Amino acid sequence: MSKRMGKRTIVLEKKPALTGFASVVGQKEGEGPLAGRFDFVADDDRLGESSWELAESHLQRSAIERAVEKSGLHLPDLDMILAGDLLNQCIGSSIASVESNVPYVGLYGACSTMAEGLALGSCLVDGGAARRVAAAASSHFCSAERQYRFPLAYGGQRTPTAQWTATAAGAAILGGKGNICVTHAIFGQQVDMGVTDANNMGAAMAPSAYDTISTLLSDLGAEPRDFDCIVTGDLGYVGSDLLLTLLREDNIDLSPVYSDCGNLLFGPDQDAHAGGSGCGCSACVLCGPLLRDMQDGKIHRLIFAGTGALMSPVSVQQGQAIAGVCHAVVLERSGN
Amino acid sequence: MSKRMGKRTIVLEKKPALTGFASVVGQKEGEGPLAGRFDFVADDDRLGESSWELAESHLQRSAIERAVEKSGLHLPDLDMILAGDLLNQCIGSSIASVESNVPYVGLYGACSTMAEGLALGSCLVDGGAARRVAAAASSHFCSAERQYRFPLAYGGQRTPTAQWTATAAGAAILGGKGNICVTHAIFGQQVDMGVTDANNMGAAMAPSAYDTISTLLSDLGAEPRDFDCIVTGDLGYVGSDLLLTLLREDNIDLSPVYSDCGNLLFGPDQDAHAGGSGCGCSACVLCGPLLRDMQDGKIHRLIFAGTGALMSPVSVQQGQAIAGVCHAVVLERSGN
Repeated sequence: MSKRMGKRTIVLEKKPALTGFASVVGQKEGEGPLAGRFDFVADDDRLGESSWELAESHLQRSAIERAVEKSGLHLPDLDMILAGDLLNQCIGSSIASVESNVPYVGLYGACSTMAEGLALGSCLVDGGAARRVAAAASSHFCSAERQYRFPLAYGGQRTPTAQWTATAAGAAILGGKGNICVTHAIFGQQVDMGVTDANNMGAAMAPSAYDTISTLLSDLGAEPRDFDCIVTGDLGYVGSDLLLTLLREDNIDLSPVYSDCGNLLFGPDQDAHAGGSGCGCSACVLCGPLLRDMQDGKIHRLIFAGTGALMSPVSVQQGQAIAGVCHAVVLERSGN
Repeated sequence: MSKRMGKRTIVLEKKPALTGFASVVGQKEGEGPLAGRFDFVADDDRLGESSWELAESHLQRSAIERAVEKSGLHLPDLDMILAGDLLNQCIGSSIASVESNVPYVGLYGACSTMAEGLALGSCLVDGGAARRVAAAASSHFCSAERQYRFPLAYGGQRTPTAQWTATAAGAAILGGKGNICVTHAIFGQQVDMGVTDANNMGAAMAPSAYDTISTLLSDLGAEPRDFDCIVTGDLGYVGSDLLLTLLREDNIDLSPVYSDCGNLLFGPDQDAHAGGSGCGCSACVLCGPLLRDMQDGKIHRLIFAGTGALMSPVSVQQGQAIAGVCHAVVLERSGN
């Protein structure tokens, strides 16, 4: 049974355990600063599939299956799969789970989907609606470029504020017993500051990350230093700077514990411009390096704040502003 | 606190109340057999907006605001809006709620989204994660035709099995006190029978409706006649026939209590071919005529089974089969 605390924070009284997690990434992601900290690195981003879209489904299916296996479970042990991605009609996720025979709950939170799934999943487990769920998200550079921007072969120039959609997926299993648990969840409201540049998603998302993180800290009566790590999904270098600046105006210094999955995923020599992005970016960094660090006792208390830019190519062409949204969960490791 | 029953059914022990509902529809929908049973009928399907996409957002925002008002509430009383639609990146729903200042949880269940939102929302209220939530969904004939099929002006021929995307939205408020409540929820698994014809969604969705409805009845130890009405979302004439046939093979006769929102929405003279469809179809029929009948004591026990076809234009072009998914809730009216 959950209860509410402060303005918007949900206290998960049973503290659902995160029993397994897995990350599956493409070649470029596997060669970056986080090399060696994922469960699987594809040596070919098509993964033997006939299309980029099916390759993305392959990544997500593989992440779910590995996370289930690492939990000592089988797919039929899951009561639900909560998943989403960036493709039109979220087809990457539905195809990933079409043969699972597990109830499928499709989400769309743009790049915040992994956090949305974890927040929803932990509420469902805490409230008794499900015993075990998988939360998963994916993205693929090639399927995203074609859909959002230009055909790959066109070789379009990228602006300095543009981010690089990660070819990656992550999945986590909630429910059962384990030493990493979800203690709190918060769902974000949309924040629209009038950004219309689809090549500057960091700026569009930073105000929503500010809103969610400052509300969560205030609801918990906590300071940044009460956490070993506060990590956003994919603000990139531009959005991260904006988030730190916005919080500093409230006398909150996030910098000692702050990271962004988009900044962690690629190195400066990888031509990723303002950093990584896409649903798979935060999903693979959480379900790879970050949860491994928790498992190893290097991180005891973590805020995972997934950030999403709510837009479509059509809405941008029609001149609509890009609103941001940020959902977050608090993860805690028991023991040493 | 919820608990699980049988294979997949969730028992909502606190029976979250459905305190308000509203439906907003376009001109054609307002002239059909259900005329006079919606909250608002647009006399112009553009609703004064500059694009069909913004018109769809307008419909959904209006449905949410009316449902909130009919609940005697204000937007800030909501802990979450759970919403989705058919547009790429679900932009119709995010724009509808961008100024609400309410946490926004984006869903993608194709045309099953209204049922997905009601099922998730009632679990969140039952489990204590939220006090009051709105579930909403929308579709618009013109934005859907352009995105999925042809530009309107092209005047493409429609096949006899094609359905007509409803210009409509529905919203319901869960939580608080009221005499209509949600007693059970069930999330559907994807069922893929190899249908690849994007003009025959009814056939693609019927097997998933069969799976969810027969599982729910079996989990509850119930027969169709234990309900005043069992209604699917948008199977249309083709899919409805298939569903009744599939159930008949299990010796379940659904016909005495069965309806389909897609069959109810348009009359035979309205050129809708195999019936209505789209997220807004089931949303407006539930949050209009059906819930009005419950309020008036004409229906006491209802299964609302939203049906969705999980596909995208790209997946169809790439030859992928269209899987169906069906989520359902059981609604009960107390008193006479």
